[in-house]
Amino acid sequence: MGVRMRTYRIAAIPGDGIGRETVPAARRVLDVLSAAHGFELLWTEHPWGCAFHAETGAMMPSDGIEQLGEADAILLGAVGTPEVPDHVSLWGLLIPIRREFDQFVSLRPVRSLPGIRGPLRDERPFDLVVVRENTEGEYGEVGGRLYRGRPHELAVQEAVFTRMGVERIARYAFGLARTRSGRVASATKSNGIVHTMPFWDEVVAEVAADFPDVELTSYHVDALAALLVLDPTRFDVIVASNLFGDILSDLTAALAGSIGVAPCGNIDPTGRGPSMFEPIHGSAPDIVGTGSADPIGQIWSGALMLEHLGEKEAADRLVRALDRVVAAGTVTPDLGGTLSTNEVCDAFIEELRRSGTAA
Amino acid sequence: MGVRMRTYRIAAIPGDGIGRETVPAARRVLDVLSAAHGFELLWTEHPWGCAFHAETGAMMPSDGIEQLGEADAILLGAVGTPEVPDHVSLWGLLIPIRREFDQFVSLRPVRSLPGIRGPLRDERPFDLVVVRENTEGEYGEVGGRLYRGRPHELAVQEAVFTRMGVERIARYAFGLARTRSGRVASATKSNGIVHTMPFWDEVVAEVAADFPDVELTSYHVDALAALLVLDPTRFDVIVASNLFGDILSDLTAALAGSIGVAPCGNIDPTGRGPSMFEPIHGSAPDIVGTGSADPIGQIWSGALMLEHLGEKEAADRLVRALDRVVAAGTVTPDLGGTLSTNEVCDAFIEELRRSGTAA
Ligand SMILES: CC(C)[C@H](C(=O)O)[C@@H](O)C(=O)O
Ligand SMILES: CC(C)[C@H](C(=O)O)[C@@H](O)C(=O)O
Repeated sequence: MGVRMRTYRIAAIPGDGIGRETVPAARRVLDVLSAAHGFELLWTEHPWGCAFHAETGAMMPSDGIEQLGEADAILLGAVGTPEVPDHVSLWGLLIPIRREFDQFVSLRPVRSLPGIRGPLRDERPFDLVVVRENTEGEYGEVGGRLYRGRPHELAVQEAVFTRMGVERIARYAFGLARTRSGRVASATKSNGIVHTMPFWDEVVAEVAADFPDVELTSYHVDALAALLVLDPTRFDVIVASNLFGDILSDLTAALAGSIGVAPCGNIDPTGRGPSMFEPIHGSAPDIVGTGSADPIGQIWSGALMLEHLGEKEAADRLVRALDRVVAAGTVTPDLGGTLSTNEVCDAFIEELRRSGTAA
Repeated sequence: MGVRMRTYRIAAIPGDGIGRETVPAARRVLDVLSAAHGFELLWTEHPWGCAFHAETGAMMPSDGIEQLGEADAILLGAVGTPEVPDHVSLWGLLIPIRREFDQFVSLRPVRSLPGIRGPLRDERPFDLVVVRENTEGEYGEVGGRLYRGRPHELAVQEAVFTRMGVERIARYAFGLARTRSGRVASATKSNGIVHTMPFWDEVVAEVAADFPDVELTSYHVDALAALLVLDPTRFDVIVASNLFGDILSDLTAALAGSIGVAPCGNIDPTGRGPSMFEPIHGSAPDIVGTGSADPIGQIWSGALMLEHLGEKEAADRLVRALDRVVAAGTVTPDLGGTLSTNEVCDAFIEELRRSGTAA
């Protein structure tokens, strides 16, 4: 009827290991969903990773970043194989993409899923988001070694926090809190001898002043880790530096019993470049080819991607389908089920069809 | 009968808040114990801390370190009040002592106590020790700010790892593992862009080669935090950098349900200077004067002190008494009891007397 369909160019990077199983699986689900919601995902496939490295000596082609720059978003599987050292595989693919596209937000929602019991005795469900700074802080290329191999050898790593960097991640976290409970917990360590953390506190407090409707509480990261295992339900948005966010997001995902299904968005909220969506799990070489890889982390990452692209209705529908699929027990062995990767996708598609009729 | 009694000079620094209640309480228990084991603790009392600061402008006298240098060990309560900023109170008392006496091991045993339920559903008891590097790494005085208050302001913190520093903490951890299960878990983050952690891994692996009977496994700190909440029973000795050890020891103490009672030894194993023993809890200004402060963290720290001084038999007896006191429920409100600080000490003394007769 002459209506132009909304289209999004998505660069798929299956990567290594089970990423090569979960990305195609998630694409199938996302395509059914997009059709039902009147938009189209135009996929390009980028077969980069450790196999590519074995052939070419690089994890991606020299114009890889340029190629990705054409996309509206990137869906990544997993990176790494036992044969290739991490500093080659991760630094050759995952980390350059995060940095080149200034994906300064690492968005890590973690919540209890229906029917999935985490390790905690207290079974009250929780629902929080770790907003991790993704471009600076403790992870920087500023560092190295002196006197290599000698008794007086030393290694240094400079943590660099800029006002711009802290401000923008804090602003994102406070904005997000507005759409949620209106509470932000900031992870700090300003009581130790860490010069950067009092600065983090100051800048976060300045940003907080612009969000009088949002409540800010700061916690030393050691105490925060303890509080999280004692009662995760008291937290909503947690804003944290690169390293603290890395630790806290794995910790909370484990508490939700969902380390294998937790998603991650590497986001540049300005939209200048594509954002990248990936499950937090790894390439799991031990289960490659068995058909037992859980596609939920990848599918949930796809939901974050759709939300980022502005397709909130579709994203919400996908997340509701996820809850129902999990609640029905139509899941892979890691979640106590008996289905294969593809059968879980079938369950998603069926659930989407059912909810489509109901809507 | 002419036998010279073994004597140890102990510097007591009650510090602030409940430290002023728990240190005298612990002294009472330790004195009964030492008498029964044929040695004597010669106490000197050092009333330093925030009240001292209010009077003198310093957290301890200018010859404070010298005074402490006379002691065989230091028993510290807690440092800090809400009125005094942490960088004044901690950096003025706690941290200089750790550093001046090169207390490079922060020894943090964490284990389930009989009858105390932690937050985990799985109630199998666990028993581990976090061996935290205590003098270098992410906590250093190398750092600062540029362009203060301006939009392009930045703060830097240099993490410095030396071969000497990593080697000596690793050697301590491996030696300790030999007396326990023979397993060491090393906390690393060498897959991220952190230049110091591959160095940490290398040096730890070199030390491991000298301990062929000890099994070493390395974990990325994010994964380790997750594994700890999924199953702490699989860990025994965990060796970690200053910051990682700080986070992991609070996390594990919370898992044991014992964050209020966990002890800490700040140890220089060479014995060149005194080592310092302190509970990991803070000064808890909110309960000061109520008599409800739990003395167990302080008493347990005393047990670590006795073990360090070579009085292993007495230390073991104190730890056994601790288990019985806790199992009997003769504890303060934080552990579900109704007793006061002093009544818990009475329970300890009674328990020691009973076990003394039995022995
Ligand atoms: C108070 C602070 C400086 C200290 C530290 O981080 O060392 C504390 O958290 C601890 O663990 O003893
Ligand atoms: C693989 C590693 C570099 C990465 C990180 O620390 O960023 C991972 O742990 C993550 O959290 O995405």
